[in-house]
Amino acid sequence: MANILVLYYSKGGNTAKMAKYVAEGAAEIATNTIRIKSIDEANADDLFWCHGIAVGSPTQLGLVAGEMKQFWEKLDDVWMHIDGKIGCAFTSQGGWGGGAEIACQSINTLLMNFGMLVFGVTDYVAHQFTTHYGATQAGEPRMQKEIDSCKRIGRRLSEWVAVYVDGLTDLHPNNAKYSRHPTK
Amino acid sequence: MANILVLYYSKGGNTAKMAKYVAEGAAEIATNTIRIKSIDEANADDLFWCHGIAVGSPTQLGLVAGEMKQFWEKLDDVWMHIDGKIGCAFTSQGGWGGGAEIACQSINTLLMNFGMLVFGVTDYVAHQFTTHYGATQAGEPRMQKEIDSCKRIGRRLSEWVAVYVDGLTDLHPNNAKYSRHPTK
Amino acid sequence: MANILVLYYSKGGNTAKMAKYVAEGAAEIATNTIRIKSIDEANADDLFWCHGIAVGSPTQLGLVAGEMKQFWEKLDDVWMHIDGKIGCAFTSQGGWGGGAEIACQSINTLLMNFGMLVFGVTDYVAHQFTTHYGATQAGEPRMQKEIDSCKRIGRRLSEWVAVYVDGLTDLHPNNAKYSRHPTK
Amino acid sequence: MANILVLYYSKGGNTAKMAKYVAEGAAEIATNTIRIKSIDEANADDLFWCHGIAVGSPTQLGLVAGEMKQFWEKLDDVWMHIDGKIGCAFTSQGGWGGGAEIACQSINTLLMNFGMLVFGVTDYVAHQFTTHYGATQAGEPRMQKEIDSCKRIGRRLSEWVAVYVDGLTDLHPNNAKYSRHPTK
Repeated sequence: MANILVLYYSKGGNTAKMAKYVAEGAAEIATNTIRIKSIDEANADDLFWCHGIAVGSPTQLGLVAGEMKQFWEKLDDVWMHIDGKIGCAFTSQGGWGGGAEIACQSINTLLMNFGMLVFGVTDYVAHQFTTHYGATQAGEPRMQKEIDSCKRIGRRLSEWVAVYVDGLTDLHPNNAKYSRHPTK
Repeated sequence: MANILVLYYSKGGNTAKMAKYVAEGAAEIATNTIRIKSIDEANADDLFWCHGIAVGSPTQLGLVAGEMKQFWEKLDDVWMHIDGKIGCAFTSQGGWGGGAEIACQSINTLLMNFGMLVFGVTDYVAHQFTTHYGATQAGEPRMQKEIDSCKRIGRRLSEWVAVYVDGLTDLHPNNAKYSRHPTK
Repeated sequence: MANILVLYYSKGGNTAKMAKYVAEGAAEIATNTIRIKSIDEANADDLFWCHGIAVGSPTQLGLVAGEMKQFWEKLDDVWMHIDGKIGCAFTSQGGWGGGAEIACQSINTLLMNFGMLVFGVTDYVAHQFTTHYGATQAGEPRMQKEIDSCKRIGRRLSEWVAVYVDGLTDLHPNNAKYSRHPTK
Repeated sequence: MANILVLYYSKGGNTAKMAKYVAEGAAEIATNTIRIKSIDEANADDLFWCHGIAVGSPTQLGLVAGEMKQFWEKLDDVWMHIDGKIGCAFTSQGGWGGGAEIACQSINTLLMNFGMLVFGVTDYVAHQFTTHYGATQAGEPRMQKEIDSCKRIGRRLSEWVAVYVDGLTDLHPNNAKYSRHPTK
């Protein structure tokens, strides 16, 4: 009954693959409707439509890509009208230590500027692999833990929207049946 | 019917004054219960109790003060148990350009690490005075706009908690009767 | 004998005015050559030419503007070839608390990605007015302290270049004759 | 003829191990003197002594640890007296995506507050492994690339100090004989 938008810009294809997994994770909560769009396909109506949004971009120079930045800068009549939506970030960087977390932080900064509530995920999806400030990746998502980190942030977004927009409080992750902190 | 915690550490008294105004702003939403505590008075029970939290600290070296940081580091059995609470930041710096926004960002980072949903405020409270990443201040809050920026982020926290925890959607700021973008 | 580039993108004219003052401050060190260019006038040769660079942009959504970001993203054969240059940031935001410090931080992040050494200024230019992470401003620089903060970061850039590139160690700011911490 | 300080706080031992490798990398430049100290062993004299500094801390809540933060907060008569030193960061986090880059950024913020020039490293030390904003690690450094990333940022610090303090410009990394971007 609530709506989730997965919005991405992809240069070489890696972020697009992440977006697909984020959307799959979001779809695990059956009550939400999921829409996945690149910035070429999306417009202001998608932003008004959604209750929660995951924004993905390649890490470029340690920040959100200029193309994604400009998508938001060029929106008309959106600022001050989408406050309170729930947001999160995902990104693919060239190498570990290459700025993906800081790029997620820049996406979160952008979303906060629109008055959104942004979050990361406490859960680990595998040993030494987490998503505290957004889903981060080096290159293409291939390993199961890389795929799972995308799915987890998508699912968490969907959970928060279900809990807070639809009042489905039993979907709160503190009630989760799945493992939130595997040790292997 | 929902609970708001204003948690602060103050060194010289400025952040304590901000905390009082943040709490006043939060109290403008009558359905919420407000609790204001310094880190010397607060403990894990306050964190479990609240649905929304505003965290305030002096800006020290461009970041949250070490004392506030250690309050959170030393908590036992809290991490992974307070996910999804709604959080925001406020801080007093030595001078404009002195790191208050980055200090708010560090508080938001800390809260996101606990799985919280963090936000800033799109509204301006006066000409060229806003609270996009938390309420910021140089020195003591004295001018009306300085006081109002504290109140506004407190009120916004209380509004999001009312909307999302209690389902009082008519309290959404997009329905606000007060001015959210004064031009003078 | 060393070279300083003031590189800016301005949307409404405020950042261009800041750039002029930054360049004036840089010119206070007579041994350095100062070049001021908008992103429409600059290219990779300017980046190779300079030993120090100040980068200015309006604060847009709490970050460096997309146009400035794309200037850097579209450079060919520059990355890995301009390591070690000395850099700093300046920006004009819509209102205090509106993200200027975080925008400076994003410019610093961008410059660090190119291997530069980035800095802020410890000095206060007036009571409660400083430039710790770059020169920040709300709207147009008009007041003397606003102008002075632009000049100071330009001068500091020029000082570091003189000290470190030309070995003019007596220009180190710790030997400065001007006031670095006025109390009024 | 110039001095490098590797300053660290370690909780479980991982950051201490990183510090050792950072110091080894710094020692590859024979003209510099290297000193490695934990915050329990260091004081203001070490800060005055050094020309370059690498600061390491565990990632705690996505930021520099409170203990390291307080080391800097409690210094007397240091602020405004160590401007212009060259600084960098290293940290060990619980898992990839766990905030190490943002923790490095917080260390860089802290150092910038003291007027230092901070940097990251453009180089990759292995396929998909870099140090753009400081050396980052999940858990204990064990793999060669993890060890090499610590060494590389130590070496780069030592190189910048040699180039800028001692004027040994042939040590500029753009003249490096070692691989700065291995593809495997």
